[in-house]
Amino acid sequence: MSLKPILYSYWRSSCSWRVRIALNLKGIAYETRTIDLLKNGGENNSEDYRKINPMQQVPALHIDNHTLIDSLNIMEYLDETRRDPPLLPADPAEKARVREMCQVIVAGIQPVQNVTVLNRLDKERRLEWAQHFISRGFTAFEKLLAMSNSNGNFCYGDDITLADCCLVPQVYNARRYKVDLTPFPKIVEIDRNLSNHPAFLATHPDKQPDCQPD
Amino acid sequence: MSLKPILYSYWRSSCSWRVRIALNLKGIAYETRTIDLLKNGGENNSEDYRKINPMQQVPALHIDNHTLIDSLNIMEYLDETRRDPPLLPADPAEKARVREMCQVIVAGIQPVQNVTVLNRLDKERRLEWAQHFISRGFTAFEKLLAMSNSNGNFCYGDDITLADCCLVPQVYNARRYKVDLTPFPKIVEIDRNLSNHPAFLATHPDKQPDCQPD
Repeated sequence: MSLKPILYSYWRSSCSWRVRIALNLKGIAYETRTIDLLKNGGENNSEDYRKINPMQQVPALHIDNHTLIDSLNIMEYLDETRRDPPLLPADPAEKARVREMCQVIVAGIQPVQNVTVLNRLDKERRLEWAQHFISRGFTAFEKLLAMSNSNGNFCYGDDITLADCCLVPQVYNARRYKVDLTPFPKIVEIDRNLSNHPAFLATHPDKQPDCQPD
Repeated sequence: MSLKPILYSYWRSSCSWRVRIALNLKGIAYETRTIDLLKNGGENNSEDYRKINPMQQVPALHIDNHTLIDSLNIMEYLDETRRDPPLLPADPAEKARVREMCQVIVAGIQPVQNVTVLNRLDKERRLEWAQHFISRGFTAFEKLLAMSNSNGNFCYGDDITLADCCLVPQVYNARRYKVDLTPFPKIVEIDRNLSNHPAFLATHPDKQPDCQPD
């Protein structure tokens, strides 16, 4: 058994990237096991991986003798067990503000625009579908940023939270699907700021060992 | 300003039902404001409601001078601010087990099979689409129940958790979309047990003031 946590990850998975950012911010060293979502009909669909994650998705994280699934759940666990730096405010109402931003992305956008869903649509509908649901979610997210008085550097308050860990990978997806980002100036500004942050730079899809450029 | 919390809800919305269960379990009296998802192209799409919930979804909850959105986020807030009875275990690893079950439903199933998504599909594809994604999620959920040693009464441990608040409304959706539940005996057993619980009975869609039977 490895002593380091093991992250089951795919370079281009926005959900994997969320967790990579949180691990990096917390200074947790980990091993990456690539689960190639394209090879052999998707290694995530193998019987071996189904035992690790019954949802057959990345990421999964083996840590503290547990195997955890679901990116937001994993990040909440990391934040509860390794508080430094905190990625959620301590006050319940402030925490709710951050979590609702997270949920707009992890429940409101990504599940509807991921590759599994798109693959069930006719090819000529996929781009428009992805654009529609990303834009719908970003319209709400932009409003939440206005309501939270975001300072333009971070989604909430004066430091990185789980909302930032969710937002930047979703902006990467938006660009991949050629979403027009001009209606979302606050999102673009935060993404620009965080793109230069070491934890976001080091964990970027292009920097992953399994990256396969188009 | 009302003294009671205000729940913006629709009788048939599974996400609204989740929160109604949690409010009932915690013994929190509340007022219901119906947001009719069908009337006038959906009251959730009105400008007035968009100010309450930028995602234009139900539920939203006005409580403690905050308006919170997203059902899981709302339930986490209720559980943090009103601990009795607790709906999440205190131990971080056990909490993660419950949260991952919740996420299978709130991110893995419901967002892909809700009416907004189905309405973007050709009519003849909707039923098969809903059945596919509910069955896929329930297949994972059934495995998680096996892994958590569920006793058949509850999803996790010896009492109701947020996972139960998510599961029962999703089973209701599954029946509505005529999903074959025979591959999911553990889910069916838990649903049968909880269907007789006062908090699940009182909050059932059919018992809501805005219920409009087919």
